[in-house]
Formats: sequence, structure tokens, C-alpha cells
Amino acid sequence: MSWLAGQGTDEESDSLGVDWVLHYEFGELDQATATTDFRTLIADLHEAGLRVQVRHGHGQSLLVCIRVPRDHLGQMIHKSRIKDWLFGITHTLPNGDENTTAVADTPSEEIRSIYHAVTWQKKLGGAGITPNHGQWKNVTASFPLHDQDASSKLLRQWSRKTVLTTQDLDTIRALFGEKVAFYYAFIHCYSLFLVVPAVLGIFGWLYLGPYSIFYGCALCVWCVVFVEFWKIRESDLSLRWNVKGVGRLKVNRPQYVWEKEVKDPITGQVNHVFPGWKQFLRQILLIPFASIACVALGGLICATFAAETFISEVYRGPFKGYLEFLPTVLFSLSLPAITSFLTGIATRLTDYENYRTQDLYDLAQTQKTFVMNFITSFLPTILTAYVYVPFAKSIVPHLDMLRWFGNSDTTTAHHDFEVDTSRFQQEVIYLSMTAQVFGFCEEIVLPYVKHVLWQKWRNYRDRRAGLTRQRSFSKATDLLLIDPAGEASFLKRLRSEADADEYEVEEDILEMCVQFGYLALFGVAWPLVPLGFLLNNWLELRGDFFKLTLECQRPPPIRADSIGPCLLGLDFLAWMGTLSTAAIVHLYRGPMAEVRLSSLLLTVFVAEQAYLALRFVAATAMQKIFSDTLRREEARRYAVRKSFYEASVSHHEQPTSPEGRVRQRVRFHERVNVYSSDSNPSPDGSPSPTPEEPHDDLLRGSDREAEFWAGPSDAADAGVKMIRALSANKADDPNRPKEA
Amino acid sequence: MSWLAGQGTDEESDSLGVDWVLHYEFGELDQATATTDFRTLIADLHEAGLRVQVRHGHGQSLLVCIRVPRDHLGQMIHKSRIKDWLFGITHTLPNGDENTTAVADTPSEEIRSIYHAVTWQKKLGGAGITPNHGQWKNVTASFPLHDQDASSKLLRQWSRKTVLTTQDLDTIRALFGEKVAFYYAFIHCYSLFLVVPAVLGIFGWLYLGPYSIFYGCALCVWCVVFVEFWKIRESDLSLRWNVKGVGRLKVNRPQYVWEKEVKDPITGQVNHVFPGWKQFLRQILLIPFASIACVALGGLICATFAAETFISEVYRGPFKGYLEFLPTVLFSLSLPAITSFLTGIATRLTDYENYRTQDLYDLAQTQKTFVMNFITSFLPTILTAYVYVPFAKSIVPHLDMLRWFGNSDTTTAHHDFEVDTSRFQQEVIYLSMTAQVFGFCEEIVLPYVKHVLWQKWRNYRDRRAGLTRQRSFSKATDLLLIDPAGEASFLKRLRSEADADEYEVEEDILEMCVQFGYLALFGVAWPLVPLGFLLNNWLELRGDFFKLTLECQRPPPIRADSIGPCLLGLDFLAWMGTLSTAAIVHLYRGPMAEVRLSSLLLTVFVAEQAYLALRFVAATAMQKIFSDTLRREEARRYAVRKSFYEASVSHHEQPTSPEGRVRQRVRFHERVNVYSSDSNPSPDGSPSPTPEEPHDDLLRGSDREAEFWAGPSDAADAGVKMIRALSANKADDPNRPKEA
Repeated sequence: MSWLAGQGTDEESDSLGVDWVLHYEFGELDQATATTDFRTLIADLHEAGLRVQVRHGHGQSLLVCIRVPRDHLGQMIHKSRIKDWLFGITHTLPNGDENTTAVADTPSEEIRSIYHAVTWQKKLGGAGITPNHGQWKNVTASFPLHDQDASSKLLRQWSRKTVLTTQDLDTIRALFGEKVAFYYAFIHCYSLFLVVPAVLGIFGWLYLGPYSIFYGCALCVWCVVFVEFWKIRESDLSLRWNVKGVGRLKVNRPQYVWEKEVKDPITGQVNHVFPGWKQFLRQILLIPFASIACVALGGLICATFAAETFISEVYRGPFKGYLEFLPTVLFSLSLPAITSFLTGIATRLTDYENYRTQDLYDLAQTQKTFVMNFITSFLPTILTAYVYVPFAKSIVPHLDMLRWFGNSDTTTAHHDFEVDTSRFQQEVIYLSMTAQVFGFCEEIVLPYVKHVLWQKWRNYRDRRAGLTRQRSFSKATDLLLIDPAGEASFLKRLRSEADADEYEVEEDILEMCVQFGYLALFGVAWPLVPLGFLLNNWLELRGDFFKLTLECQRPPPIRADSIGPCLLGLDFLAWMGTLSTAAIVHLYRGPMAEVRLSSLLLTVFVAEQAYLALRFVAATAMQKIFSDTLRREEARRYAVRKSFYEASVSHHEQPTSPEGRVRQRVRFHERVNVYSSDSNPSPDGSPSPTPEEPHDDLLRGSDREAEFWAGPSDAADAGVKMIRALSANKADDPNRPKEA
Repeated sequence: MSWLAGQGTDEESDSLGVDWVLHYEFGELDQATATTDFRTLIADLHEAGLRVQVRHGHGQSLLVCIRVPRDHLGQMIHKSRIKDWLFGITHTLPNGDENTTAVADTPSEEIRSIYHAVTWQKKLGGAGITPNHGQWKNVTASFPLHDQDASSKLLRQWSRKTVLTTQDLDTIRALFGEKVAFYYAFIHCYSLFLVVPAVLGIFGWLYLGPYSIFYGCALCVWCVVFVEFWKIRESDLSLRWNVKGVGRLKVNRPQYVWEKEVKDPITGQVNHVFPGWKQFLRQILLIPFASIACVALGGLICATFAAETFISEVYRGPFKGYLEFLPTVLFSLSLPAITSFLTGIATRLTDYENYRTQDLYDLAQTQKTFVMNFITSFLPTILTAYVYVPFAKSIVPHLDMLRWFGNSDTTTAHHDFEVDTSRFQQEVIYLSMTAQVFGFCEEIVLPYVKHVLWQKWRNYRDRRAGLTRQRSFSKATDLLLIDPAGEASFLKRLRSEADADEYEVEEDILEMCVQFGYLALFGVAWPLVPLGFLLNNWLELRGDFFKLTLECQRPPPIRADSIGPCLLGLDFLAWMGTLSTAAIVHLYRGPMAEVRLSSLLLTVFVAEQAYLALRFVAATAMQKIFSDTLRREEARRYAVRKSFYEASVSHHEQPTSPEGRVRQRVRFHERVNVYSSDSNPSPDGSPSPTPEEPHDDLLRGSDREAEFWAGPSDAADAGVKMIRALSANKADDPNRPKEA
């Protein structure tokens, strides 16, 4: 697989009609369990009506390639559309009866139905494969293949232009689903908004200097307006993408425990109910959790801060140059342990809160992550701004513990200790410049290098393992373990994608929220902060897309109608930012010694009232000005009902929605144009038989594709043979775990 | 007409099939204009397909009795239901085609269609009669007749029970429409909630005393929880009554000025658009308006307050006993002038803001009234609490202007001036006890007495006028001006109702909001405040219903899905109340001289954060716990779509909503039971012909009813004769205005 965009050959980017891939690792199982498990897996997939081919992966693992027969897929898509309509997500009833097969409008719609076919519970018509969970904990990855052509084209396009368009967002949505598209919409909207404070900031830097009242006020207003605008924009996009309120049609999580089954008196549906008040009581546990996280992380940060201050300001002993870094190093080393401990508690809490859908579960988990992130990101700077600089003069001498140990000569200098008031500003400059660059490298460049090297190492090891194996096995088994020439590059890509990380869109959203938080909370200290962020975000957007398409597995195209709990976080940060900006301006504008507590409190109090009033006005104004969005939604509902009414009055023969007859269905060639300017669709791009065509859809794929799927007819047997071959090889595998 | 509930005879409560009454006053017009106008009026009514009878009213006025033919009414009801369905207010498409006549489920549904028939513009199918406006400014009243039986029964039932049920609210809704019903639902819900602080208050009064921290916190929590609960309750009721989102289907106000006509690309409807941003810019004028109102009313109140304080605390001259009342008297005398001046500005502002529907217009007007009410209601007590008591010691000596005039002997006492710190508490006690009783008398008892006496005087005068007329007119005209024996009591009632005030439900809601505000802002000063309010509200609820049914015209049954802008007011008062309670407790708990500004600010600041957190938690919890409401709405939508889908799949013959076939239609006898335990429906209670019955519905009314409607066939001629007769009599009319 080529990891450089645009260099993929045609052969390599052909996915041979593989819709979905499962990665089955059996290194830790004995051979008998591994074969039984694997046979069950294949049987379940067959039972759900899916076609299966097996190839071996890196080390002791198998790659299960899944293809959903096109007529089955078409039916699933149709059913999914009917469901959307029933739940009021879309307003046009699709034509057709129960056996209609539909053509997907976008790749993501198609992949979503494939995802459902693989993961949904059996009673819902899926194969019930939940990777890393319960029965399937040895299925370590479950993913669709990337569309390399489209991704690399998009990336090349973006590198040439400054501003994304709504069409670009539509393309992201078409490729990766709404949840991912919302992240790109958010970073795009946020970056465009950043232009205003960036320009103001340049002006402020030239003429006003830091801690300017005017710039502070402008920044607060900007924050509030941005958050309110984004709410409208989000709602607008969710209507554009037909996902408004999509949360309610999602299926139950397998882990969901309900208390009673209630048959709805109106619809006759059976609902699995867990009482809302019980869930709320359990959610209240968030408060002790947040407290514990505050104490644990806050304590750690405070201790580090104190030790660092002590060493740099008071300590005059030997090794000062090295000792200064010690607290930060210790902090960095212990942070992952504490964070993972807290995340463990958070996960158990979220499990206990017992959410019905995966969406709600993720939302609750992200909330908790947000709390932890908030503490680790903002607390150090808050300590500098509100504790170190104002109070260091009275606190630092108390830190001088060494004197109690009689070691007074090391601390002689503390009497002429002077607080470095510019330290706060330096930290802000660091946060907005250096930290952003470091973050980018850590997030995108490092993992990429790591992944490439790791792949090279695994390929090398596999080749060596292949050589040892040749001595001990029959020709027939051997053939199974050697990639056919036509598939070699495809399988290389497959193995690489199976080893890649899962893409977590929440992390990227959270990163942007934290950036917004830095700006809102501390931006007034240095007017060029928004400019730095703006430049960073230009790169970040493209870097994140690079990561998504070339470093991570393609995420299942999950639907969402919002950026999720971070929206609440933005509200919180805008509020906090107003208070913080007011306090910083008040504290740092004049000589700090002259600041009185009552006047500071009054400033912050007034700022809070101004914030509340401003938010109210901004929300009202936005709703008034952008009321078109709402009106359009209403008009659409009205149109549906009207046409139905007209049909019903005129005793129409076919009582289907008359809208359906004139509905513009986006055909495949139009769809390709959504994400590619090339008029030549890739060979795997014709997955949609209309009912008139013959049902054996493989005939219509490329020759190589047909060859691939014409492989060993009994996938289970082929897999079991490979398991045996690879297991026998275990002794030679350096990665092989010790067995009990 | 009997103004005592339950004393009405059967004959009197019979409304003779009159659906609607217009009161046409021509005392200020010359005879020619009056007759032309009147002929146009009758022609417009006839054109809209309405039946008309004319009788004379008190003095120079005519009463136009309108009846909508039953089949016309049934069609209007059916069309209205179709419209509800089209706009997504209801989810079941009514059976039938364009000519179907429907039977109203409730009297208010029937009267609403009658109201539309009379008031809607001609192009919408109405007669276009807008009372007191433009062409029809001499139509001074436009109202349906009260259902005396149902009202008096309900009042008697309520006087025997303590707590209303949801059925009682349903009955109010059936009689007076949703807007009025929401007020009763609000006062009912609020009163029930008041039980908690009332019990706490008794406990606090016995053991804690005033200004208790515990009681203050409990009160704040209660306020927030109540407001959040009401929001859920309101949404629940709006679903129960099928009015959720009803605002969007309302017709344009005749005064609405649009900028462009936009044809909706989706629905094909022509919308009259006025840009949202323009309206918002105009709305911003609310800020200068609020400032002017603050300065005008606040200045007046401050001056009164200062003068009163000066006279009672400093002044020692002659007539002190009388002079003390002078400022309050002057204030009371000038308040109406200032208020009416401000209301004038408010109305012009609201006109300028150019709202599409009457609902939005009323909402904006009520907002402005709320601002004025807020200032006049709360500012005096706020001044006592935060200015007079804390600062009187330093301010009052400065008030001592008399000394500058050399009149020093009158002010000798000011050096030993002591602030009366209990004055604030006394004011709160007055507000929660005496003021409530006074308010009740002023609102309900006084107007009742006034109305009864006024009616007696007019009847006496009409009798005298009748005697003078006999000498100058022919027998034929005379007969027109003498009530037939069968109609006499009915016409007496009609004239009385035509003279009654219009019922303004917003005023009642505002009154409750102000009461809630007293409790939230000052309740902590005297723990028995909620108990006082609770007792008052028991009476208030019944008193308001008495006023509605026996003192006011029956309001047109307008639909609404909320108590309107007061909801925002409640939010505001809960917020303000938290700050105020915190400040009062901090100020008044200990000796006031020891209070420091910084600690006070800190208290208020902390209280505000607590409020914000609490409101967030309360809102989240309520939504979780009462999520059933939302789910029910979704289930209903789902059911509609599902049944439609099933019908569409099975190629049903009649593509009407299958729900319609099993729909329970509430028939008339069931409807009567909604508001009356009596199984004997009143004779006018059969206004709903099913299409099979003969269309001349008068045949099925009582004999008296038939006789009434069989009167002079040309209503216009009869009216014109009466105008002449009554105008000729003008010279004898003591009320006759001077003509130019």
C-alpha cells in the first residue's frame, strides 16, 4: 500500500469488491479454540447472507474479507430509508415495496448498510459481530477499505485552495459519514471566524498592546457570537444532510440492560425502557468523578508547579540546570498512568449509566474526557495567571523548605526574589505557537513515521517466517499462505489498513475545543494568539484529513446531527472566557499591587452579567436572522403532507407519496462527481445492480475481482488450514505470548 | 341577565342559536354615514354566508346577532382540521373530501371557526370584520355568548374542591380555548408548587426566623425547579391539547407590511416575507424604550420615596400627619398618565416592529408591558431593601434641604435619626398579605359592583328613552324598539355582555408572574410569604374564573402553546431572585454596619454561579425524568407514518390515513360531559348537523330559536330603521356627544 497520496497505482487502489474486513487474531488462543471460534464467525457471516473470503494477515492473524451481495445490500439500503422516513428524519417516502432494492446516493450510505449487516444483532438481520467485545474479543479490527483515489484527489485539491466550500464538506460526508463531516464543518467554520480576531489582533498588537480593554471586550463578544452561530450552522447542516434527530432511530447497544419492556399504546412497538430518573441519579456520579479528577490531576499539577517554581526561583544548589526539568519530566511520566486510571473509572461509570444507544454512550464518555482534558489543559496556565504571578511574592518564601533542614546556604537568594510578571504572557505565546507545532508533529507526523516503519518491519518478518515455514509444510498449505500475484499489492494494503489505528473523531473535536478555550481564556494576554491559531488550523485541517485517510482505518460512516457534548463545552468555555478575560485585564493592566479584591470582584461580576445579556441577545438575533433554516424544514414537512393530502383527496390509484415520483435520485455517475473531478469511475465503483440486471453481480466486476471472489468456496476450511499453518509456526514467532 | 352564578333560568341561559355578536355604536356618526356603514356591514356578513338578525342595544347602538349555517360551519371546522394536519400540529388526517362537514369536538373549536368566519379577511373566506380598527372602528365589540350553564356549574364545583384536576383544565380549554386554559394550568401548577415553600415557611417561621440561610437556599432551589418544571408541563399540555407549534399556521395580521412575496420552492406557497434582520434591528429599540421607562418610572418612584422618607424621618413641621401621605397620593395620581404615555410609545414600537401574526404582536407588546410592570412592582421594595435601610443613615441628612432655607427649627431632630431596619420586612408582609387582598378587591369585586350598577342605570335610562320616543314615532318603528316578550331576558343579557370588558388573559398571567417575583426576590425576609400567596391563589383562581365568566365578554378561543413571554420573565425573576436572596441574607443577617462590600460581592457572585449550575442540572434532570412527553409525541408521529406506509405497501384502495378509520370521534353528548355533570344538554346544544340531515338547521332548534331567526328577513332594513329611530331620539340622550 502506498502511503503517499496520489502515488497509488490503479491496481493497488482497486479494492476487489471487498466491502468490509474483519481482522481475526488468534495468537493468544490454542489451535482448537481458534478453529472453533473461526468456524462460528464464518457461519454467522454466512447466516447473515454475506460472502466471505479469507486471507492471512501479519503474524498469527486472518483477514476476513466480506462482500454483501448487491441485491441484499440494495434491500438493506431501502429498508434503512424507510426507517428514516418512519422516524421522521426524511420527509419523502421512498418508492417501492418490501423487496425493492435501492441504489445508495453516497458511498457512506452504502457502507453504513454494510456496517449494519456485519454488526447488528442477528434478530435485526445482521451477523452480530461486535469486535473486541464478548464472544468476538479476538476480532481486533472491523473496518471498510479506504477509497484511495477519492481521498488523495481531495487532499491534493485542498492543498491548493485556502477556503473549503460546502461542497467539500458534502464530499467528506459522502466518503466518511456525517459524524466526521461535522468535525470538518466545525474546524472550517471556526477557522473562518478566527479571521476577525486575527485582524483585530494584528491591529491590537501594533497599537494597543496586551491586556487591552477594547481587545478583551471584542474577544468576548466574538466568542459568544461564534458559539451561537455554530449552533445555527450545525442545525442548518443537519437539515442539509438529512440527519436531524437521527439519534432516536439508532438501535440498542448490545450491553444495554432494560428494566421492562413496554408496548407503546400508539405505535404497538415494543420499547425497552430504563427509567430516566434512575439514569439521572447515576449520572449524578459525574460530580464525585469530576471532584476526584480535579483533586488527582489538580494536585499533581500544583505539586509540579510548586516544585518547578521552587527550583527555578529559590533553589541555588548544585545541578540546578538539570533539576529544573525534573518536575516536568516526572509529571509527564505520571500523567498517562493517572489519566488511564481516571479513564478506567470514567468508562465504568459510563457503563453503569446504562445508555440505550452507542451515541448516548459515546456522548457521556466524551463528557468525562472533556472534564479531564479541561483540567490538564487549562489548569497550569490558570495557576500561572491567577496564583503564581499575583501571589508568588507571598507564597514562594514559604516553599523554602530546605531552610528547615538547615541547608540555609542554598537559599540565600530568596530575599531579593522578584516575580516575573511576563511569565504568564510567555506561557500564552508558547501555547499559541510552539505547543501547536509540537502537537501537530505528535498527532500526525510521528504516528505516520511509526506506522510506516512498523509495516516495513512486519513485512520483513513475514517474509522470514515464510522462509522457515516452507521447510515444514505441504505445497497445498503453502499456496494458501503465499499471496497470488494479482492480489499481492491489494493484500499488502489490506494488512497495512488492518494494523492502522482507529480514527477517533471526538479527539480531534476536543482538540479544537481546547484551542478555542485557550483563546477565550487567555487570548487577551497576547493579541497575536488568534493569528497563530488561524495559521495552525489551515495546516491542522489538512493534516487531520491526511491522518484520517492515510494513517487510520476508515471509520464506519456513523450519522450524527451535532458535534456532540463539545457544544456544551464551547458554551462553558465562552462563559469562563468572559470571566477570565475580565479578571486578566483587571489584574494585569496596571501595577498588580494596587488591585483591590472588591473592585476585581465587581469587574468579574459585571462581566458575567454582560455575558448573560450578550448571549441572550446573540441567540435571539441569530434565530431571527437565520430563521430561513427553520422555515425550510417546516416547508418541507408541509410539502409532504400537502402532496399526500392532495393524493388522498383525488383518490389516487397508488397511494405512495407523490413526491416520490418526481424525486431526483442521484445516480452513480453523479455521485462519483461529488468527490472526484475525474470522469472515469474506478472499477469497483459499480456496486449497484438495478433489479432488472442479473443477480450474480460478480460478473460485472473486473476480472481480478471475479478471480478474488471465485477463490476457495469454503472460507471456513481455508481459514482453518491457515490457522493450523500459522499456529504451527508459532515457535518461530518472536511475538508469540507464553501460553499457560 | 343574572350576574349571580346558578340563578339563571332556563329561558335566560338559552342563547337562541346566536353564535356571535357585534356591537355597532353610531352615537358619534351622522345618520347617513351610520346607515351606509351599517348596510356595508350587513352586506359583508351576508357575502361571507352568515345569517344575521339585528336588535337595538343600549343608547345609540345596535347588536348584530350572527349565526353561521351549520353546514358552512362544519366545512370550516373540517378545513381548519386539514390545515392543522398540513402544518403538522395534529398527526391524523381527517377523513373526507373538500365538502365534508365535521362536528366540533369542543365548543371552543366551534367558536374558533365562527370567529374566523367573522374576522378573517375576505380572500380567506371570512367577513373581514376587525372591530375598533380601520373601516370598522364603530364596531366596538365582537364576541361570542357565554355558556352560562357550563360556567356556573364549573364555578360551583370548584368552590367545593381544593385542587383542580387535568379534567378541569380540559374543560376550561373546551369552553374558552387554549390560551385561557394555559393561564389556569399555570396558576394551578404554581399553587401546587407553593405548598412546598409554604410548609418550609411555617417551619422556618417557628424555628429559623427571617433571613435564614437554609430557607433562602431552599427558596432559590424551589424557584429554579418550578420554572424548569413548568417548561416541561407546558410542553406536555401543548401536546395534550394538540397545539404544539400552533403559532406558525396563524394568518397574517391585516396591519402586516411585507417587503416581498416569495414563492416557496418546496411547497409552492406564496409567503409574505419581512426580513428577520430588519425586524431584529427594530426590536433593538426595546433597549432605549426600557431605559426611558426606567428613568421615567424609576425617577418618579425614587422622588416619591425620597419625599416620603424626608417627611416621615426628618420633617418636624406642621401638618406632618397629612403631608406623609402626600407623595404617595401624588405618585398614584401621576402613575396612570406616565404608564399610558409609555404604553403609547410601546404600542407604536410594536407596530413598527411589524409582526406577521397577532400572536407575535401580542407577545412583543406583553414584553414591553412586563418591563414597565417590573419597574413599578419591584422598584419600591428594591429601594427599601438596598438603598433606604443600608444607606439611610448617610443619605437622609442630605435630604434635609429645609435647613438651607433657614428653617432650621423644623429639623432639629435629624441628628438622633435612627434607621428602622424592620421597614423592609414590614413592606414584604404588606405585599404578601394586605396588598394581595386589596388587589383581589380591585380586580374582581369593584368591577363587578360597577358593572351591575351601570347596567341598572342604563336599563332605567332606556326605559325613560322609550317613554319619550312613544310620543314621536309610528307604531311600526316602535315595535322594532320594544323587545318581544320571548326575547326580553335574552336581549337584556346580550346588552349586558356587549357592555362588559374584554378579558385580557395576559394581565392575569402577568399578575401571577409578579407574585412569583415577590416571592423569589423578597420571600426570604418573612417565611410566611408563600403561605399567604398560597391562600390568596386559592381565591384568585376562583375569582379570576368568576371575572372571566360573569364580568367579561367571552374571549375568542385563541390557541397558544405557552403562557408566552412571561416564561422568559419567570426565568429572569428566578435569576434575579437568587442574587437578591443572597444579598438580602448577607445584608440583614448580622449587624449591617459590619457588612463589607467585597464579601457581599463574593456572596452574590457565588450565588450566581450556583444558580447557573442549578438551572443546568434542573433542566437536564427534568428532561431526563419527564422524557415520556417527548417520546409520546415521537411515537404519535411514528404511528402516523407507519400506518401510512403500511397502507401504501398493501396498495390500499382509499389512500386516506388508516388511522382515520379507527379514530374515536368525540360526539356531542360526550362533549357535554366534558364540562357538565348534567346529562340534560341545553337546547342550543345541538348545532351539528351530519350531512344526512336536512340542511335547514333552524327546524331543529327550539321554537323560540326558530322564532328569533324568522324575524325581519332583511336585517339591513330593520337596522336602518332602528338607526333612524334611535338617532331621532338623540336630543334626549344625556350621553350624546357635541357635534361639530
